[in-house]
Amino acid sequence: MPQEKKPTGREKEAGKGREAAASKAPRKEETQGLTVKKSNFSDWYNELVQKAGMADYAPIAGCMVIKPHGYAIWEAIQRWFDARIKATGHRNAYFPMFIPEKFLKKEAEHFKGFTPEVAWVVEEGGQGKERFALRPTSETIIYDSYSKWIRSWRDLPMLLNQWCNIVRWEMKATRLFLRTREFLWQEGHTAHATEEEAEKEAKLILGLYRELAETQLAVPVLTGEKSEKERFAGALRTYTVEALMPDGRALQMGTSHNLGQNFSRPFNIVFSDRDEKEKFVWQTSWGFSTRLLGAVVMTHGDDKGLVLPPSIAPVQIVVVPIIFEGSKKEVLKEAKSIADKLSDNFRVEADLREDVSAGWKFNEWELKGTPLRIEIGPKDMEKKQAVFVRRDSGEKKAVRIQDTEREAGAVLQEMQKSMLAKAKRLLQSSIADAKSFPELEKAIGQKKMAKTEWCGGRACEDAIQDRTAATIRLISGEDKASGRCAVCGKPAEHVVYVARQY
Amino acid sequence: MPQEKKPTGREKEAGKGREAAASKAPRKEETQGLTVKKSNFSDWYNELVQKAGMADYAPIAGCMVIKPHGYAIWEAIQRWFDARIKATGHRNAYFPMFIPEKFLKKEAEHFKGFTPEVAWVVEEGGQGKERFALRPTSETIIYDSYSKWIRSWRDLPMLLNQWCNIVRWEMKATRLFLRTREFLWQEGHTAHATEEEAEKEAKLILGLYRELAETQLAVPVLTGEKSEKERFAGALRTYTVEALMPDGRALQMGTSHNLGQNFSRPFNIVFSDRDEKEKFVWQTSWGFSTRLLGAVVMTHGDDKGLVLPPSIAPVQIVVVPIIFEGSKKEVLKEAKSIADKLSDNFRVEADLREDVSAGWKFNEWELKGTPLRIEIGPKDMEKKQAVFVRRDSGEKKAVRIQDTEREAGAVLQEMQKSMLAKAKRLLQSSIADAKSFPELEKAIGQKKMAKTEWCGGRACEDAIQDRTAATIRLISGEDKASGRCAVCGKPAEHVVYVARQY
Repeated sequence: MPQEKKPTGREKEAGKGREAAASKAPRKEETQGLTVKKSNFSDWYNELVQKAGMADYAPIAGCMVIKPHGYAIWEAIQRWFDARIKATGHRNAYFPMFIPEKFLKKEAEHFKGFTPEVAWVVEEGGQGKERFALRPTSETIIYDSYSKWIRSWRDLPMLLNQWCNIVRWEMKATRLFLRTREFLWQEGHTAHATEEEAEKEAKLILGLYRELAETQLAVPVLTGEKSEKERFAGALRTYTVEALMPDGRALQMGTSHNLGQNFSRPFNIVFSDRDEKEKFVWQTSWGFSTRLLGAVVMTHGDDKGLVLPPSIAPVQIVVVPIIFEGSKKEVLKEAKSIADKLSDNFRVEADLREDVSAGWKFNEWELKGTPLRIEIGPKDMEKKQAVFVRRDSGEKKAVRIQDTEREAGAVLQEMQKSMLAKAKRLLQSSIADAKSFPELEKAIGQKKMAKTEWCGGRACEDAIQDRTAATIRLISGEDKASGRCAVCGKPAEHVVYVARQY
Repeated sequence: MPQEKKPTGREKEAGKGREAAASKAPRKEETQGLTVKKSNFSDWYNELVQKAGMADYAPIAGCMVIKPHGYAIWEAIQRWFDARIKATGHRNAYFPMFIPEKFLKKEAEHFKGFTPEVAWVVEEGGQGKERFALRPTSETIIYDSYSKWIRSWRDLPMLLNQWCNIVRWEMKATRLFLRTREFLWQEGHTAHATEEEAEKEAKLILGLYRELAETQLAVPVLTGEKSEKERFAGALRTYTVEALMPDGRALQMGTSHNLGQNFSRPFNIVFSDRDEKEKFVWQTSWGFSTRLLGAVVMTHGDDKGLVLPPSIAPVQIVVVPIIFEGSKKEVLKEAKSIADKLSDNFRVEADLREDVSAGWKFNEWELKGTPLRIEIGPKDMEKKQAVFVRRDSGEKKAVRIQDTEREAGAVLQEMQKSMLAKAKRLLQSSIADAKSFPELEKAIGQKKMAKTEWCGGRACEDAIQDRTAATIRLISGEDKASGRCAVCGKPAEHVVYVARQY
């Protein structure tokens, strides 16, 4: 392998820049890196998701393959959330993917809401044909079991969750992670003795969803309630966690539904209470899906590739040796030693490949969004230092080798905070106060989210959608209405956030 | 709640025995415990799986619900295996559940092997109807992606795994965990540059499967190769891990296939090697499923319920306070304190319920198979001790409270070893050497596994199945044939194990 002979500075030493990297490139199609900038948002997203190894189109229309890098981020999200729900008394289970048609029909609103997107398996049996839906969501099949399992107040609360695949046979254009016919999710399903407990549970999960988005994904969110129109089919109240993407479209990061007794009545989930009376249980259901991965890509990615929050990065730190023939052995050894030490506390990889240049490696790890790169070359070794490069800011600094562990922790922590802070600033600057309909239209036109007031009427809600293609994403739980509805001018009931949506 | 007033011994103190427990029973249907003994094997299994909270029948024929207790055991299995495959360079991904019919048809043997059990989703589109199979296994959909992703030797080996649901629309009678139309599994799919590497991978996984069965599930196994007749549809060689259940039927605990180039040719998975020649990759696939949970139930369960190996028990230790009015507060506090201390190193629960008796709790935790019960009552507190009760042997001993952590570790370790040893003895005593066909028939009739010799001919293999309903479960990799085929009397090629199977 040819090596550069006379490095004069770090940039040259590392063989940085796309040209240098390309000179050793093993695979032509990947040397190009991203060909589209983030300013060309939709194309940039599609290219990045595929090139960074997050996901790929499947050979079935509307479906995706979640590739290892994407799946590892999903696993990090699962680990965090799974631990949190277990700590709050929930347990996992698994219910069949097949849902008899008659179950879906038991709750009328629910059936109406989901049937247009259902994929069916038809079985021809002795008693004629029977149709099974591939679960678009599992309320009905799970609550059939609950009606058998729940007998007494001692069986409550029942707090179950499942991690599974979901099928919604949509006809709209496919977008990896954001709109596919099959995706992965978690769905929690709980049953309680009282309305208050169910409401408390729905809010507890809403809080966990916010915490997941903000502390793990570094995606700031707004939380509130959905309007009746946007509510989950069959729910009493739907709470939502909404983020705003850089293209001005809102993305739902998770929803938590207070189902009231809307399912326990048709499914006859009855318990004998302490007072020995038979009562219907109060229920919640809640879920988030692999679309969270899309939110991470869009919120943090840049023209070089992904930028991953350290909390969920499959590899948090990559150590890259700067190799020259004369010092190769020592540098490789030192790189390995740094990585070994760090691996007690971090997810680390030492990229010791000798058939690609350091510059090639830099590009590749940047494309994959690895939070911290540690470079170590012969000059660094002389100075007993390594060079830290942060993925989000590109900031470089020399760190004494003996301090690498402490400094790595500090840098990753700082990066996690700073990514959230940056995204928060963008969110805040993307919310426009709209006191009138023209202001609302203008905000949506400028790819912003409009904060406005609403009378609560369906006609005004429909008018917003018809005229702006935006919808009420949530009703604020914090702000009280004090003015007039931006559409009809009548006294307002709610402060709402309006945006186009994914 | 009425409390017993004058305890004279531990048995009475604890309110033990089903009658005592029943007197406080909150749920009638559960107080009965098991109504069937293990000697009535099939009914015992069905009742135990449901009563212990492992699984339930679903309202769709042929499907099951995996309940929290069963799912938690599956999670323990996943944790162990996932860590092992990651440590050996494998990564997880997720491929669509829908497989186009034309993919399944590409490998003729594979198609023939799986189509009878496939459930189809039919889509009516612009170009007529298209049928998608719900994955009965994912070779074809995954290898389509591999043909796009693999270009060069640098992309190899490709070592992926997925955890997912599988559909095989069987018409035979449903048995929870053992035969259901939907189940969960892991499937690994690897691609290599050479035949040797693929063979090495298939064997590596076979070794991990054996280790999983023996060190985690405490289920001793035999390993070897499948005959051509029993081989995976499309494989060059199938390696198998087989256990023998107490009813004399063999249960496949996992299979690892060397696929050779049988899939890379029809799917055109080609790489450019170091010598710049284009070559087809060599592949393996391997999997185990939730039927492992059935093996655990059958191997270890007894007339009182499940007996779980400590390695995979969702709760390894339960601390049960023996409550009397006078000393209630202190005893509850001590029980909690013991559990808290143990929870640093074990999965522990303190059962502090006051509305059921200690005897009721004993029965319930025994039914669920919890390995170690620690009882603490007022008399124990006086003596600064707790009473340890092992689930497998029923053995009791007093342990000084200050020694509980050390002793708990020792007891669990001993129990894990002893459960495997016991199962090994049963396996060994259930293998009969059969030199002739009458001996083979006799062994199968006695619900044993026959170790016999075979000429390698299909006619003799078919004859065994026709006349005994047993099949060749595996060809021994250790023993060399030295005698004659038990069926035709010609010189034998292989030492084989023959049994009826699940």
